[in-house]
Amino acid sequence: MKKAIVLLSGGLDSTTALYVAKSQCFDELYAITFKYGQKHDKEIRSAVAVAQQAGVKEHKIVELLLNQWKGCSLTDPGMEIHDGDVARNTIPDTYVPARNMVFLSVAASYADALGITDIFIGVSEVDYSGYVDCREEFIRSMEQTINLGTVLGAEQKKKITLHAPFLHMTKAEEIQWGTTLGVDFGKTWSCYRGTEKPCGTCDSCLLRAKAFREAGIQDPLLNDSES
Amino acid sequence: MKKAIVLLSGGLDSTTALYVAKSQCFDELYAITFKYGQKHDKEIRSAVAVAQQAGVKEHKIVELLLNQWKGCSLTDPGMEIHDGDVARNTIPDTYVPARNMVFLSVAASYADALGITDIFIGVSEVDYSGYVDCREEFIRSMEQTINLGTVLGAEQKKKITLHAPFLHMTKAEEIQWGTTLGVDFGKTWSCYRGTEKPCGTCDSCLLRAKAFREAGIQDPLLNDSES
Repeated sequence: MKKAIVLLSGGLDSTTALYVAKSQCFDELYAITFKYGQKHDKEIRSAVAVAQQAGVKEHKIVELLLNQWKGCSLTDPGMEIHDGDVARNTIPDTYVPARNMVFLSVAASYADALGITDIFIGVSEVDYSGYVDCREEFIRSMEQTINLGTVLGAEQKKKITLHAPFLHMTKAEEIQWGTTLGVDFGKTWSCYRGTEKPCGTCDSCLLRAKAFREAGIQDPLLNDSES
Repeated sequence: MKKAIVLLSGGLDSTTALYVAKSQCFDELYAITFKYGQKHDKEIRSAVAVAQQAGVKEHKIVELLLNQWKGCSLTDPGMEIHDGDVARNTIPDTYVPARNMVFLSVAASYADALGITDIFIGVSEVDYSGYVDCREEFIRSMEQTINLGTVLGAEQKKKITLHAPFLHMTKAEEIQWGTTLGVDFGKTWSCYRGTEKPCGTCDSCLLRAKAFREAGIQDPLLNDSES
């Protein structure tokens, strides 16, 4: 059995990463999802549904309140989530400080405890919201740090690999790949807002809509029957 | 005002690190303590007392249960904490997988939110329990990763520094330094067990006793009046 840990937010990217791991013969999968103080739990419920459908061996939901420090509109009750602007050149206020570093560290702890050398994350440095922790330079440095800061990497000399299969891929290409792998995109949730239907206007909805349009695929989440 | 974040467990090392930060003119201090599933809260209560005595500006206690994966005797209710053996050459079962990486990542998130470029951690690669995440190689790699994975480091190009003042120091030297800085060691807690008095036989008690002995200083925690 080839084992892997997958960071699973319940969004489009992490769900597709889970199916990529499956397709690469990682047949015993461990998913990890974070409750970090998001204003709604729709993506967490999506993560549970996705993990179940994909048949993961174990799904850990880790609570870690990154909203104890203010300034992020995804977690700060005093801040509104603005409508998106994908042409924007600055880092949006939906940025959660060092989120991927924190998540990957906790995943590395989980990996170190279980003796698992492969970790998947669905980041891309092509179609992203300007978050610094989605870039290859960061991912490679994090991988090195994980290999130095775990018993698995530093003592047992088993190389831990961070797999970021979409790093150099557009979201449209990722959706096309996911479609061939049988990803049920209707189960994923990307919208920053916790409304019943995706709002269609936040940054994340705009990126998702653009990607499905470019991929020439209909987003099943926007079908009435999927509500 | 020079600001710094200090990882404060309530133990001897992190408390001394806090006082070193103060002595280096970091006059606005932010302490961060983790409840990661320890079997007792004695060190957390120590951290609160230390932070108060040192006059920190803000003290965050972050809950993050690293005991969701088994195998560490500090957090796994099914495992006993053994008596120590400082001559041992293997990694003890008190090792919490990737703990310092996780703690430093969360501290980096806090730093990124507040715009603070200095983080203190009390690790030493001389007198330690064989934990891989106390080594200089790891600390320097982590520092680089933090600079790549935060807006502060990667976008604003403000170099974030991980200060590990005891990295190449014995615990005895650290205690001597702390004594000159006025550290109240009676307020710190090192014992792995949550007994009323330090057990005197766990790894952490043995290391502490050896260090005070070598420093030629009486550990105030072992005075009857300090119980």
